[in-house]
Amino acid sequence: MIILHHLADSRSSRIIWLLEEMKVPYKLKHYDRKSPALEDNGKTYIESAAVIEHLVRKYKRDLKPSEDNLDALEKYEFWMHYAEGSLMMLVVGLFVNNKAVDMSPLVSRFLVRKVTNTINENYYLKELFLNLEHVDDFLSTSKFVTGDHFTAADVQMSYPLLCLQSTVLKSRPYTNIKRWLIEVTSRPAFEVASHKAHDKVFQLLNETTQGKDEEIADFSSFSISA
Amino acid sequence: MIILHHLADSRSSRIIWLLEEMKVPYKLKHYDRKSPALEDNGKTYIESAAVIEHLVRKYKRDLKPSEDNLDALEKYEFWMHYAEGSLMMLVVGLFVNNKAVDMSPLVSRFLVRKVTNTINENYYLKELFLNLEHVDDFLSTSKFVTGDHFTAADVQMSYPLLCLQSTVLKSRPYTNIKRWLIEVTSRPAFEVASHKAHDKVFQLLNETTQGKDEEIADFSSFSISA
Repeated sequence: MIILHHLADSRSSRIIWLLEEMKVPYKLKHYDRKSPALEDNGKTYIESAAVIEHLVRKYKRDLKPSEDNLDALEKYEFWMHYAEGSLMMLVVGLFVNNKAVDMSPLVSRFLVRKVTNTINENYYLKELFLNLEHVDDFLSTSKFVTGDHFTAADVQMSYPLLCLQSTVLKSRPYTNIKRWLIEVTSRPAFEVASHKAHDKVFQLLNETTQGKDEEIADFSSFSISA
Repeated sequence: MIILHHLADSRSSRIIWLLEEMKVPYKLKHYDRKSPALEDNGKTYIESAAVIEHLVRKYKRDLKPSEDNLDALEKYEFWMHYAEGSLMMLVVGLFVNNKAVDMSPLVSRFLVRKVTNTINENYYLKELFLNLEHVDDFLSTSKFVTGDHFTAADVQMSYPLLCLQSTVLKSRPYTNIKRWLIEVTSRPAFEVASHKAHDKVFQLLNETTQGKDEEIADFSSFSISA
């Protein structure tokens, strides 16, 4: 028996997606404040990528490349780690700084925004744009992140990129990332998960593909819980 | 032929350690500025954890638990992802804020420090202490991070904890983390790697185990390159 303890607007939305892809029965419990976790047969799993590895091994091995396809497996391992270890780290850094502005007293908000904007421009946004260019380049020759087939690494990579769709992804074309986002989010399992997750970011916004301009520093709409 | 493109004071120090554990011949190239990367037989690997997975699969499989030991394998997967996805993310957040103070003009440094200290206290340090308590609890009943045997997940976890040894780890006892740090860093391969890495943080400081007090916000001595 699988129970997913789901925190609204958090990384656990993609676990719902994976469970829907696998067509494995599970019980979804919604919380406003609780670290998301997966319980399977009484055992608790945390840390998104480790939860995904457990589910793939137990329920649907073909969502991870086998050693017979070493090139795809190596790509899978890279993206599984890159999604949180490199990309989401930058997204969270921007989110934390934005939250600091929102939570500061009105009298000092201008100064707090000035300091955090400087940090964002000198590090988080600079690194983020470099990273997104690499991701976009990679996806220009690859249908999914590990090659021709959809894998759990696409699920893992979805969250940081969906988090950025109404902000940073709008400021530049990133045509290959947007093509990939349309591709993966049009899967029936994603649509079911997006509906069940009650998650503000876990859905493809139409505007993503239209390049509508908007202030790129508003990261206030998503949670940072693991 | 393996070539490790090593950036001083960076996460790639632990790749040197792993190669020494494996006793695999490799060529070490030192750089001051370059993204660290491993080249093996002409193919390039990046993202520490993915580099580790490649090396373990190709050169020394017993540094990763097999599926016959599922409990240890699940722990391995957890720590491999947790090290960068959760723990190092907080370390980098502190480092970036500290760097922002150091790089600010003298005239505004007091204000920048005030803003970043508030962010650190409300998020990065708060989360870090919670995380370190969990790690310390876990290590109270486990010799290595996956159980009785040393694995590549110990190598992966070493870097964020070594980064913290002269700062946050000094401010509280964390006796189990310190016991583990002494255990893993006394391995001969670590000592060789520590010498070769030319890395300010990649060595066990004697003071770590002595609980010497020091300002806990000084993260200026390590790099954030992957």
